[in-house]
Amino acid sequence: MIVVMKHNASAADIDTVIRQIEARGYKAHLSQGTERTIIGVVGDNRPVQPHNFEMLQGVEQVVRILQPFKLASRDFHPANTVVDVRGVEIGGPRLTVIAGPCSVEGRTQLLETAHAVKEAGADLLRGGAFKPRTSPYAFQGMGEDGLELLAEAREETGLPIITEVMAPEAVPLIAKYADVLQIGARNMQNFPLLTAAGKTRVPVFLKRSMMGTIQETLMAAEYVLSGGNRQVMICERGIRTFETATRNTLDINGIALLKQWSHLPVFGDPSHGTGRWEIISPIAKACIAAGADGVMIEVHLHPADALSDGAQSLKPEKFAALVRELKQLAPVLGRTM
Amino acid sequence: MIVVMKHNASAADIDTVIRQIEARGYKAHLSQGTERTIIGVVGDNRPVQPHNFEMLQGVEQVVRILQPFKLASRDFHPANTVVDVRGVEIGGPRLTVIAGPCSVEGRTQLLETAHAVKEAGADLLRGGAFKPRTSPYAFQGMGEDGLELLAEAREETGLPIITEVMAPEAVPLIAKYADVLQIGARNMQNFPLLTAAGKTRVPVFLKRSMMGTIQETLMAAEYVLSGGNRQVMICERGIRTFETATRNTLDINGIALLKQWSHLPVFGDPSHGTGRWEIISPIAKACIAAGADGVMIEVHLHPADALSDGAQSLKPEKFAALVRELKQLAPVLGRTM
Amino acid sequence: MIVVMKHNASAADIDTVIRQIEARGYKAHLSQGTERTIIGVVGDNRPVQPHNFEMLQGVEQVVRILQPFKLASRDFHPANTVVDVRGVEIGGPRLTVIAGPCSVEGRTQLLETAHAVKEAGADLLRGGAFKPRTSPYAFQGMGEDGLELLAEAREETGLPIITEVMAPEAVPLIAKYADVLQIGARNMQNFPLLTAAGKTRVPVFLKRSMMGTIQETLMAAEYVLSGGNRQVMICERGIRTFETATRNTLDINGIALLKQWSHLPVFGDPSHGTGRWEIISPIAKACIAAGADGVMIEVHLHPADALSDGAQSLKPEKFAALVRELKQLAPVLGRTM
Amino acid sequence: MIVVMKHNASAADIDTVIRQIEARGYKAHLSQGTERTIIGVVGDNRPVQPHNFEMLQGVEQVVRILQPFKLASRDFHPANTVVDVRGVEIGGPRLTVIAGPCSVEGRTQLLETAHAVKEAGADLLRGGAFKPRTSPYAFQGMGEDGLELLAEAREETGLPIITEVMAPEAVPLIAKYADVLQIGARNMQNFPLLTAAGKTRVPVFLKRSMMGTIQETLMAAEYVLSGGNRQVMICERGIRTFETATRNTLDINGIALLKQWSHLPVFGDPSHGTGRWEIISPIAKACIAAGADGVMIEVHLHPADALSDGAQSLKPEKFAALVRELKQLAPVLGRTM
Repeated sequence: MIVVMKHNASAADIDTVIRQIEARGYKAHLSQGTERTIIGVVGDNRPVQPHNFEMLQGVEQVVRILQPFKLASRDFHPANTVVDVRGVEIGGPRLTVIAGPCSVEGRTQLLETAHAVKEAGADLLRGGAFKPRTSPYAFQGMGEDGLELLAEAREETGLPIITEVMAPEAVPLIAKYADVLQIGARNMQNFPLLTAAGKTRVPVFLKRSMMGTIQETLMAAEYVLSGGNRQVMICERGIRTFETATRNTLDINGIALLKQWSHLPVFGDPSHGTGRWEIISPIAKACIAAGADGVMIEVHLHPADALSDGAQSLKPEKFAALVRELKQLAPVLGRTM
Repeated sequence: MIVVMKHNASAADIDTVIRQIEARGYKAHLSQGTERTIIGVVGDNRPVQPHNFEMLQGVEQVVRILQPFKLASRDFHPANTVVDVRGVEIGGPRLTVIAGPCSVEGRTQLLETAHAVKEAGADLLRGGAFKPRTSPYAFQGMGEDGLELLAEAREETGLPIITEVMAPEAVPLIAKYADVLQIGARNMQNFPLLTAAGKTRVPVFLKRSMMGTIQETLMAAEYVLSGGNRQVMICERGIRTFETATRNTLDINGIALLKQWSHLPVFGDPSHGTGRWEIISPIAKACIAAGADGVMIEVHLHPADALSDGAQSLKPEKFAALVRELKQLAPVLGRTM
Repeated sequence: MIVVMKHNASAADIDTVIRQIEARGYKAHLSQGTERTIIGVVGDNRPVQPHNFEMLQGVEQVVRILQPFKLASRDFHPANTVVDVRGVEIGGPRLTVIAGPCSVEGRTQLLETAHAVKEAGADLLRGGAFKPRTSPYAFQGMGEDGLELLAEAREETGLPIITEVMAPEAVPLIAKYADVLQIGARNMQNFPLLTAAGKTRVPVFLKRSMMGTIQETLMAAEYVLSGGNRQVMICERGIRTFETATRNTLDINGIALLKQWSHLPVFGDPSHGTGRWEIISPIAKACIAAGADGVMIEVHLHPADALSDGAQSLKPEKFAALVRELKQLAPVLGRTM
Repeated sequence: MIVVMKHNASAADIDTVIRQIEARGYKAHLSQGTERTIIGVVGDNRPVQPHNFEMLQGVEQVVRILQPFKLASRDFHPANTVVDVRGVEIGGPRLTVIAGPCSVEGRTQLLETAHAVKEAGADLLRGGAFKPRTSPYAFQGMGEDGLELLAEAREETGLPIITEVMAPEAVPLIAKYADVLQIGARNMQNFPLLTAAGKTRVPVFLKRSMMGTIQETLMAAEYVLSGGNRQVMICERGIRTFETATRNTLDINGIALLKQWSHLPVFGDPSHGTGRWEIISPIAKACIAAGADGVMIEVHLHPADALSDGAQSLKPEKFAALVRELKQLAPVLGRTM
């Protein structure tokens, strides 16, 4: 951390900053520029808050030098983390495809979709049983009945299942059924939920918030990791920008950068990331080309009848075509599938 | 809701859309333009999702006409809602000032601050006992001990207290102590939490998410209102934009528009909205000038020692000066204080 | 400027950075942290680009310490700049109101509007003769005929006139008629235009781009100032964010911060900043409360017939009411009007 | 265009809207919903502005139905436009690689770079002679001397050249040397410049503004097209969002959507789109995977010595490796190279 003093800061101002740094157990390192004095805070100052110095007389700004995450960083863990979900290795050379409906809507819908995506080449089955919905008047999911249907679909197809958990007290229930706990974008900074997920040993699929920076996303992962759960995957699913032609702006840069900064597996979600089924396939390929370890795709038998997010779902035959294209792409990018 | 057909949509495509509209119990109303056919969906279609039509062959876009919120809307409730918190009337002609530290840090700190803000003219005391923190390594709040200190401060000063609740299962505990439940910006779309708050009869102070549109903010309020809790206040605390010179961008337009669209009381929070103590006072005055019913201000005796958010806290004497300025401003704007 | 080395940077990497710093005529100042080495670049390094160091082996990031603007900064010019426009003093204690139609549409429209705003209390008359329009099919302005009408309106009312200039080669023509050259938001980083305006001695009214940071806005002002034209005013007119309920998001924080960082007069433009006439008045008051030296308001006799931007225009009687409110507000804020 | 009336609009309000529609030469088409009346404006109403109706008594909102662009739209021009630049066909099956330094800095630098990129497989040579720079104190480009060096590099390598034009009066000079006129992101809505470029018959390479929506980008193209110049290419180079870890957020969705909405060739620019050389290669591949017709890449012999934008430049050997990867990728995506 570096404290930059104002142009007109006095010697007494500088002294006070130095004393505050030392009072916190760090060393101060003074550097006199031509227009500004800057003071380095030497030591592992991740726990110190910039505002502790920003409020002092004569201080202009405080700059963090260390990334605030540690367990999620490649600095201290250079090799890729590979998460094993019932034998599916995620984060290694093989690409992973997660597919299924946005919401579990009924037995027939789920089982037919599960078989369809299995046949097309999916590795995991997704499906929401508890749904975060903007409107209190919209379908909120089938709840535990949905979880049971997911378990049945796993039984029938052999596909591991991933489903969303929305509240800390629901973690044990979801963990009883699911192979992977999904934490949704709106909950990326739901800290009690992250803490609860960190106490389990179930792999966590953490979606980046539509307002979350890459750094904050890794800090959210750090919550889970620091609880002792080291099986965390991150998913870019679009951020919120001024552009309204697509539902969100899928941050393809974020995928490439997450792979550089972190050892955790990274996914792309072109369904939520675009909100438009016509461009899901090109964007899925773009995610993989940028270095993602896999993609998550919404598939629905009859998108127009979907109870949620039909506009961003592929029909099974389009999904199968996409998987075929990804299989051609994989070897060119040094991956398998 | 209006369904816009593509330039080259066929008669069969149009027919399918009409049948889908009617199958959902609405009337279809056809309008033939020179380049596009548009089809109105007549009836209270708030529960219908645009994607139900977006996926149909030949559809170009679907446009919502009705605002999706109802209980929060002035359309059906033209008069201002006035929330009574232990005799403090919020949302009427009198302006409300909420003040206190970001976090409760200890008995002396809280009681001294409580007395200081009371004396300066605050109406309610704020203070976080459970804190949402970006880093798992940062101070997470005093928990229930903090709630007890808040109750003691209320006892001593007579100020009603407001504090944050972060998880649905914590609602009963917080509601036992607090006069107002604060739902923080990161939890604006924590739907289980909104639902739990809607089941109480404790007033709710709902902060707009830094990525929440005004419409989504009112939909979050609708969750609480539709649970039967009609005492909801909304607080603009800054949205996330490309500008980094301030921590957030306080959306002053949002304050004026919320007052037009909704009957609920609206606050501004210049502490979080700016993240810079030097501009808290001008921005607090701007919030009031734009029509806010009150402001929430962070006050700390020694901001440089604050365990959270010191850089956006005012010292008590600066806070007192601000209240004096607001008192001069109020009558010019047709308010009292 | 500070160069932060990577965790695993070698001694040779550090050496190279030091040699590059010295080769550019600066002193290097080494600071060894526990996890990172940082190297200060000592000297007025405003002309050095961060990328010169970012590309070197072992460098993690480069942080600018000095604000890149100098002539626009209060550091070197603590007193407010007061711009004199035909006797109207802008940036001093007296608030300035600029008003008029978005576009000059004809003689009657302009003269009637000019008289109306003059009578209501406006200090300057605005009106576009050359209009930047998103669509090539929309009304592009009356051109020089419009300038002549503006001059006639000045003759009749005594109000100085401000109008937009869109291209460097048009500067002499506009400067022949206008008392103030307006540079629009879309041209804030039109560097040849800024350079051309800097060569005149006509006051410049520089609108912040909807994507311009506060720092970039002051750098744009710096272009004009460094050309020798010291009469620059800055106008916040809304930035582009994810919120679509208002046309733009008026950055009220930006107004307060510009007043702190710079000595130049600062305006708010609630017409463009909101795009909704119903909230122009509260937002105009908010601008003044936040410290703006004045406001720019679009006024149209018959907004529904306006050839551009009618939805953000006030009718003359509403404008007159707003001026009356601002006059009541001014003394409370220590201003005159 | 559709006019949505307020809940409480009167019959007289509705009548006024209808009369205004008819006065403009369109037909009004009334549709009575349960809570709102909506009125369609029938006819090619691209020239009508929404605000003409928004200001009328009782109007709630006005919704555009037609995309405002026509010449740029696939609706009326389903086949891809192929631009021929000295025999290089852009927008057909073959991918195009444009490469070169950000700025022309000198004869040796340019010629060596030109040979290096030619040998590595580039199709066109880029290089800035007139540079838009945020700071008036930064290197502004070599001007006409730079243009002459570019012409010399074309002579030597056979690569067509593309360079930026910043002002309308500079168009003839640039057109004398360049095979393609580049209009930079900051000038995307410099309407006099677009108009001037539309009057030439030189191909135009239009970069999307960092604040430009996809629709506005196509409207900017429409300016050039409607001037009679049909050879327009569009380049996505990153938009401005809250994320600061990368210089901009390359909008990969935008590339896929532009290819759907328009027949014009579309490029991606991962150098500006990321601002970080370490992720240029994965993002370049992502652009192609998403459907781009080519990429533009900054290449510099010694990035650390570059006078502009070194941090986003590849060294020639890294660029050559990228081209080899793109060549492997092309056939998998149904392209040649």
